[in-house]
Amino acid sequence: MVSLYGFFITMDREEIALNFKNLQVDIISGLEELDGLGKFELDLWDRPGGGGGITRILNDGSLIEKGGVNFSEVYGALDPKIRSELGMDSNSFYATGVSIVIHPNHPMVPIIHMNVRYFELDDGKYWFGGGIDLTPHYVVESDAKWFHQELKKVCDKHDPSYHPKFSQWADDYFYIQHRQETRGVGGIFFDRLKEDNLKSKRNIFEFVYDVGKSFVPIYSEIVNRNRNKSFTESNKQWQLVRRGRYVEFNLVYDRGTTFGLKSGGRIESILMSLPLTASWVYNYQPAEGSEESRTLTYLKERKNWLI
Amino acid sequence: MVSLYGFFITMDREEIALNFKNLQVDIISGLEELDGLGKFELDLWDRPGGGGGITRILNDGSLIEKGGVNFSEVYGALDPKIRSELGMDSNSFYATGVSIVIHPNHPMVPIIHMNVRYFELDDGKYWFGGGIDLTPHYVVESDAKWFHQELKKVCDKHDPSYHPKFSQWADDYFYIQHRQETRGVGGIFFDRLKEDNLKSKRNIFEFVYDVGKSFVPIYSEIVNRNRNKSFTESNKQWQLVRRGRYVEFNLVYDRGTTFGLKSGGRIESILMSLPLTASWVYNYQPAEGSEESRTLTYLKERKNWLI
Repeated sequence: MVSLYGFFITMDREEIALNFKNLQVDIISGLEELDGLGKFELDLWDRPGGGGGITRILNDGSLIEKGGVNFSEVYGALDPKIRSELGMDSNSFYATGVSIVIHPNHPMVPIIHMNVRYFELDDGKYWFGGGIDLTPHYVVESDAKWFHQELKKVCDKHDPSYHPKFSQWADDYFYIQHRQETRGVGGIFFDRLKEDNLKSKRNIFEFVYDVGKSFVPIYSEIVNRNRNKSFTESNKQWQLVRRGRYVEFNLVYDRGTTFGLKSGGRIESILMSLPLTASWVYNYQPAEGSEESRTLTYLKERKNWLI
Repeated sequence: MVSLYGFFITMDREEIALNFKNLQVDIISGLEELDGLGKFELDLWDRPGGGGGITRILNDGSLIEKGGVNFSEVYGALDPKIRSELGMDSNSFYATGVSIVIHPNHPMVPIIHMNVRYFELDDGKYWFGGGIDLTPHYVVESDAKWFHQELKKVCDKHDPSYHPKFSQWADDYFYIQHRQETRGVGGIFFDRLKEDNLKSKRNIFEFVYDVGKSFVPIYSEIVNRNRNKSFTESNKQWQLVRRGRYVEFNLVYDRGTTFGLKSGGRIESILMSLPLTASWVYNYQPAEGSEESRTLTYLKERKNWLI
């Protein structure tokens, strides 16, 4: 959806926001096809300080138990406290982006998260950020490997230095420090990406947009590889425990969440990332040699999936 | 359990820790009697940097779905980052305390939390802290009022200025800023309490200890008023939503939790406060005029229960 006209001039925020909005529409359509039953409800909202968003939520689908795809375009005064916390030297901000979290009902199908975003400050400084990461309840080696290979392709198309850097960044970012566990099998994460001698603002946007476009085909493949597997009640229990870890990461570490909660963002859109249900069992230790224990070992060892 | 011998000299930390340890034993015994079926398991642990604790957990009782009563006595070097965050000017610390969270299975029985603690720094500075607060899934006015009256009695016995100050402190502390809701119906919260011209260290300890001793009789009365009420599946759903808020408070705001996670505390003992199960429903809005909506109104208006 990059406009041809825009190709020859620098991108302004309106064009970026429009493309993100269209990306949301495409992703919704892809996810509804993948689910086969559920439909995303629509929630339009305004932000009191400026801007607003389009939150789309799918509840109780055939595959998706709770899934959210949020578009937002918000702007306004930057709270001095947040400004100093983020090290931003600006009185106001503009931010637009799409963020997604899908919690499937099937314990053998991974949770997935994707986010693309654009920030702009009042002195004209801007940057792009984003990421995509996979959180299997049960790690399947071949899926994790394939997932990383696909992300590498997306990155390599734009810059061969991206994937090593951004996958390392994801490993560092999606880390539950207090558990000494990764959230899942990683992916890519990047921030503060802007033009330089080699790349224009549009080039950076195109990379970010490609990350967004890769979401549906990548997740569809992962889902289809696993959705017909059988599972037990004990697999469902483990899924709830794994979701508990997801809640811990999002509420304690995730910058989008903690920034959103502190900056008076729309709570329901921020916390749409939380699962419908989660569980905390005191001192849960999977049985030695079990599938649960194998997954935990992967999360503890911070495996590089491309080696 | 205050020793007669100690009455005439200032209290040292060993005496305080011993009393807290005995308090834990008494509370365990009171809670097992209240539950009537479940028994608290015992988990002894050492802290790598110094000290350790006794974690007691009751799972799947007749009333208590998940309850933890933790005693800890920890000491060691104070991480410079945490030191500056807490504004503490000391290289090392000593802390001992008892903390409790009880999640009942019955949706008409409230969640309760109690904590008493003692801190000491290497320059001899010390202080006591603590609190007790009630989180009903469904607010019952007469129970909330009685709860506050009982806490007022405990406070008034020691200092008539305590209750107004400490109940206000609880209202401010147990507040979910991003939801603009109180966690429950409040209680008391206090910190940095130490001797002054009117009170000795032992006087302060005696107040803190009385707060601890009040826990079992107060919670038992609240439980017995509600445990035989009937409930529906929809009441259980609401209980899960309310527990989700409890998770949000503990992971985002609770100082004991966030300090513990950052300072390398024992994760399982810190997160024993989280419920067995919780739920996040996107944009959940109770029906107008429902009991759920009435409870939400109480949480939003920050009611003073003694008026």
